[in-house]
Amino acid sequence: MVVRVDLNISLDGFATTTDQTPEKPFGDDWERLVAAYVATRTMQARVFGETDGRGTTGVDEKYAAAYFEGVGAEIMGAGMFGLHSFPDDPDWRGWWGEEPPFRCPVFVLTHTPRRSIEFANGTVFHFLAATPQDALERAVSAAQGGDIRVGGGPTVVRAYLEAGLVDRLHVGIAPILLGQGIRLWDGLRGLEAGYEVTVEPAESGTTHLTFHR
Amino acid sequence: MVVRVDLNISLDGFATTTDQTPEKPFGDDWERLVAAYVATRTMQARVFGETDGRGTTGVDEKYAAAYFEGVGAEIMGAGMFGLHSFPDDPDWRGWWGEEPPFRCPVFVLTHTPRRSIEFANGTVFHFLAATPQDALERAVSAAQGGDIRVGGGPTVVRAYLEAGLVDRLHVGIAPILLGQGIRLWDGLRGLEAGYEVTVEPAESGTTHLTFHR
Repeated sequence: MVVRVDLNISLDGFATTTDQTPEKPFGDDWERLVAAYVATRTMQARVFGETDGRGTTGVDEKYAAAYFEGVGAEIMGAGMFGLHSFPDDPDWRGWWGEEPPFRCPVFVLTHTPRRSIEFANGTVFHFLAATPQDALERAVSAAQGGDIRVGGGPTVVRAYLEAGLVDRLHVGIAPILLGQGIRLWDGLRGLEAGYEVTVEPAESGTTHLTFHR
Repeated sequence: MVVRVDLNISLDGFATTTDQTPEKPFGDDWERLVAAYVATRTMQARVFGETDGRGTTGVDEKYAAAYFEGVGAEIMGAGMFGLHSFPDDPDWRGWWGEEPPFRCPVFVLTHTPRRSIEFANGTVFHFLAATPQDALERAVSAAQGGDIRVGGGPTVVRAYLEAGLVDRLHVGIAPILLGQGIRLWDGLRGLEAGYEVTVEPAESGTTHLTFHR
C-alpha cells in the first residue's frame, strides 16, 4: 500500500488558482494547468467518456494511465469536492457530475460533515472532520489493499507532506507562469530528504517529477 | 546576438539565498543549489582550474559547456559582484578571486559606480548606474557581436525578463526545496508567451528548462 499524490502545478509552483466560480469550478488558469493531462487518451475516456480512442499517447498519457491504477481510496479537501462554493446546499452532489472519475471511496475533509453520496460507478463520497492521520486510517480500511491517493487541493496535499505521510509525490509541471493561486511548495523546505527523484519530460513541455521512497 | 540567462534554481523557485556572509558569499543553500553544475568538467576547469579532466560529462556538462560559449559580455547585479557585502571598500576586487570565470567585459549594476577593475584573464568589471536597457546597450557595444548574458542575481534577471529583453532563459532546476531566498518567478505571469520551451533532465536529478524565442 502506497500513499500517492499526483498534482499539476505551474513552473512557479501554483497548484490551483483562486479565481473559481460555480460555473468554472477551478478557474480559467486551471484549464491551462491541466491542458496536457486532459488531452491524454486516458483522461478523455475516464473524465469525458470519449471511447473512440481519441487523445494523446505520449509521456503524459503514461502518467495519466498510472493516475487511476491501483488506487483503492481517495482523500480530498472540501474545496476539491466543491463545498466552498455551495456550503449551504445539503443536496449538492459536487461538481464532478454523475460520473465522478474516482470509482472508489473518496474521503472529503470538512469541518461540517454531511451524508455520504453514492454514485452508480462505484464512487462514494464520505465527509469527515478528521486529522490527516485519522482520515488516512479510514481510507486505508476502505481501500482493501489498494493505494491511497491524496488528491488535493494543494493545502491538503501540503498537510500530508508535512506530516510525512506521502510515499510518492508526482507533479506534472506545466511550462507556464501563473503568478497567482495557491503554492504547493510553501513550508516544505528539505522535503526531498528521504526521497529518490525521477524527472521525465513530456512532448507537451510538461515535466513529470516524482519523489518516491 | 542573443541575450541569455542561465540560472540555477530550486524546485520551489528560489534562485539564491539570503544567508550570505563574506566567508560564504552565496550562503550554504547556494552550494546545494549549484552542486550538480559545479561537479561538471567545464566548471571544474573554468572555475576551479582543475585541468586533469575531472568532473561529470553528462547532460549537466552539456549545459555547463554552453554556459560560456559565445558570450561577449555579461551583466550582473551589485550583489553578485559582492558590493552588498563590502560596499565601503573601494579596493575590494569582488569575491571571484584573481581568475574570475567570465573572461569578458562584465557590467555591474550599482547605484554607486566605482573604478573599473581589470584582470589578467580578460575579465573587466565596469560599474554602471543605468537602466536595464542602457546597460544592455553598453554590453552589446562591448561584446563585439558576442552574446550577452544577464548573469544574476534573480532580481536583476527578473528586471530583464519583465522588460522583455531576454531571448533565451535557461534554468537548471535542482530537485530540492529551499523554502527561503529570492524567488525568480515572482511577477512574471504569462512570461511563456512568445517562447518555445525545451525540457531536458540530467542524471543528477536537475531539470534543464529553456524558454527560447
